[in-house]
Amino acid sequence: MKIGLLGCGVVGSGVYEIISQNMSPMVEDFEVVKGLVKTPEEKILPYMTNDASEIFDNPEIDTIVEAMGGIHPAYEFITRALNAGKNVVTANKAVVAKHLNEFTTLAEVKGVKFMYEASVGGGVPWIKSLRQAMRIDEVTHIGGVFNGTTNLILSEMEEKGLSFDECLKTAQKMGYAEADPTADIDGIDVRNKLIISTSIAVKKQVQAEEIMTYGIRAIAPCDLKYFKSLNKHVRLYAEAVIEDGKYCCRIEPCLFDVDQPEAGIKLNYNICSLYGKTIGTLKYIGQGAGKLPTANAIVQDLLDIDGGNTALPKLCFGGDAQCGMSMLEGCYYVRYSADVADKLEAAFDGVEKTAVEVEGAKAFVTASIPTISLHDRIESAGVGVMDVFVTRI
Amino acid sequence: MKIGLLGCGVVGSGVYEIISQNMSPMVEDFEVVKGLVKTPEEKILPYMTNDASEIFDNPEIDTIVEAMGGIHPAYEFITRALNAGKNVVTANKAVVAKHLNEFTTLAEVKGVKFMYEASVGGGVPWIKSLRQAMRIDEVTHIGGVFNGTTNLILSEMEEKGLSFDECLKTAQKMGYAEADPTADIDGIDVRNKLIISTSIAVKKQVQAEEIMTYGIRAIAPCDLKYFKSLNKHVRLYAEAVIEDGKYCCRIEPCLFDVDQPEAGIKLNYNICSLYGKTIGTLKYIGQGAGKLPTANAIVQDLLDIDGGNTALPKLCFGGDAQCGMSMLEGCYYVRYSADVADKLEAAFDGVEKTAVEVEGAKAFVTASIPTISLHDRIESAGVGVMDVFVTRI
Repeated sequence: MKIGLLGCGVVGSGVYEIISQNMSPMVEDFEVVKGLVKTPEEKILPYMTNDASEIFDNPEIDTIVEAMGGIHPAYEFITRALNAGKNVVTANKAVVAKHLNEFTTLAEVKGVKFMYEASVGGGVPWIKSLRQAMRIDEVTHIGGVFNGTTNLILSEMEEKGLSFDECLKTAQKMGYAEADPTADIDGIDVRNKLIISTSIAVKKQVQAEEIMTYGIRAIAPCDLKYFKSLNKHVRLYAEAVIEDGKYCCRIEPCLFDVDQPEAGIKLNYNICSLYGKTIGTLKYIGQGAGKLPTANAIVQDLLDIDGGNTALPKLCFGGDAQCGMSMLEGCYYVRYSADVADKLEAAFDGVEKTAVEVEGAKAFVTASIPTISLHDRIESAGVGVMDVFVTRI
Repeated sequence: MKIGLLGCGVVGSGVYEIISQNMSPMVEDFEVVKGLVKTPEEKILPYMTNDASEIFDNPEIDTIVEAMGGIHPAYEFITRALNAGKNVVTANKAVVAKHLNEFTTLAEVKGVKFMYEASVGGGVPWIKSLRQAMRIDEVTHIGGVFNGTTNLILSEMEEKGLSFDECLKTAQKMGYAEADPTADIDGIDVRNKLIISTSIAVKKQVQAEEIMTYGIRAIAPCDLKYFKSLNKHVRLYAEAVIEDGKYCCRIEPCLFDVDQPEAGIKLNYNICSLYGKTIGTLKYIGQGAGKLPTANAIVQDLLDIDGGNTALPKLCFGGDAQCGMSMLEGCYYVRYSADVADKLEAAFDGVEKTAVEVEGAKAFVTASIPTISLHDRIESAGVGVMDVFVTRI
């Protein structure tokens, strides 16, 4: 297999390392022919080029690994490669979440493979496992703790009693969080992973707007203290339920009992779970980010292309499930500052709830309520984003 | 695919159910042609027979599912099927642990498939995942909580403070433990699963005598109370380490921090884990026993045979790793009755240890010591099996 690598950063160089160092006899016949970098200055190894046509116009290269990230020019490069009759393997969750249907269909038309194991859960063999489970069962539940930055912030807050801002800075220093952490802490990164997973399960391109997405930005030490008193840990949890031709997806902070594996997921580890009627619950834990785990997932895709894994069915889009926003509900912990108590409590008028003691703030726990209704009420209260923090309990 | 089913008990009937009820479009072309039962009285459905030749001599049947359990006549049936040029899928850990090399080699010679996903971890897709990881990494660590009976007993003892005997009776009433629970509580059942997993990793038939195997028979409420004070849970843990051409395997009670997923494994759930250089740690959680999860794993094997999964390499035995019994060590909790204190303490003369407070008994925790040496010392003390209980800590 002759490979053209788009992007020679952390993940790309990991792929190069696994292949060029012959870490496994199975990759002996693989060769990274060319690797694309952005500027002439970045060409630090002989296989590197900053001229994309050296990859796309090279008939020897049969497979493209896209490890650049972002939508552009990844989208253009992937479609160009598929149109040129080259297989594509990508780790890029943003572009896959947006264009999975299009890429899958184009690959099918062109008779090549499009694979994206590394785009969700990094090294966790999740996509393949989900598709394998679907050979027998309809998958009716998907769950996951998918984001290292929030894992780190929440663990640090729990263990050290520090503020969100202090822990965010730690995460940035450790290289976990970006300078602009919005995508991580507001759930956008996780949303891409949930879109991809759910799109596979419902065989339909799920849209970002269909996913209720709430992050951890407003969490405070008093919340963690309360959760600790319940002997629970909080994680940013992504979830999809698929039933009776409808699906519903949400991303929000969620409490787990200490003996649930989700509660113990730390740092760059991810957990992905599914439920099917005959298999029951399956959960997968592994490193969701990092050079070699992510590169490993990419090379696994390359091995499946090379070996001809014909035992997984083609993923045919064309599912007719509809998004049903009110399918999911839960009991919620709602903590708010005394300043906004009047507005917030008015918005929850008529909802069964119990006041709970939280240091320096007001809080209540609701009876089970549809997730969409909870957030509608909070929005209708017209309070600031930082004035209220909500967790499923 | 035309299937002959050997054994129509819990697992066999689950396979029949998934296939005959067309639970998935992918099994539409599968048919269970005949199912073997032991006596004419058991022939309660038209497809059943008590005449094995109706299966083995039927040229229409291309694949045999063995779901009888035990060594005989499963061994004879499996070799007969392979010799007759039929694929074999089995859930039988005992016969696979003993004859994996022989079955794999015979299948290869005969140009048919031999598969056994359900034999370890039931519905957990563990065997395939292990073999997939080995496409890139050498797997240097395997771990697992593999036994529902001991999970149940240990959870019940922890939660209710009851004695081992009382919890064993509960497990028997719930259908988890056999009338003769020896295989479960002394680690024999787990040993079969560890033999199979390790044999795959080292590409060599591992022998039962090579595995240090210790069960939970002597555990008492005072032990659980002490573990609780450490905020840890105890599970019967199977482990193999493979390094520098040597392997070492042990099965013994082991403590886990509450936030490790092993600590939370309950009832019929299993966890299987591996470590490889590039992928790091992967863990899989699912139902290790039960009708439909186990049947699901068997049908997954059938789908791989039918679809032609050519992306997994052949498992070629011929590995030359040697068993190195002293590779594994740990710190141990040793609890014993006052009656045997003199003998036991003399046997641990010269070992660095710290006395710990345990209700109604004596106990100490050792500094790190080779596992084999610890057990040699206990054996040399010449005390009764029920007089001392040991857990890695």
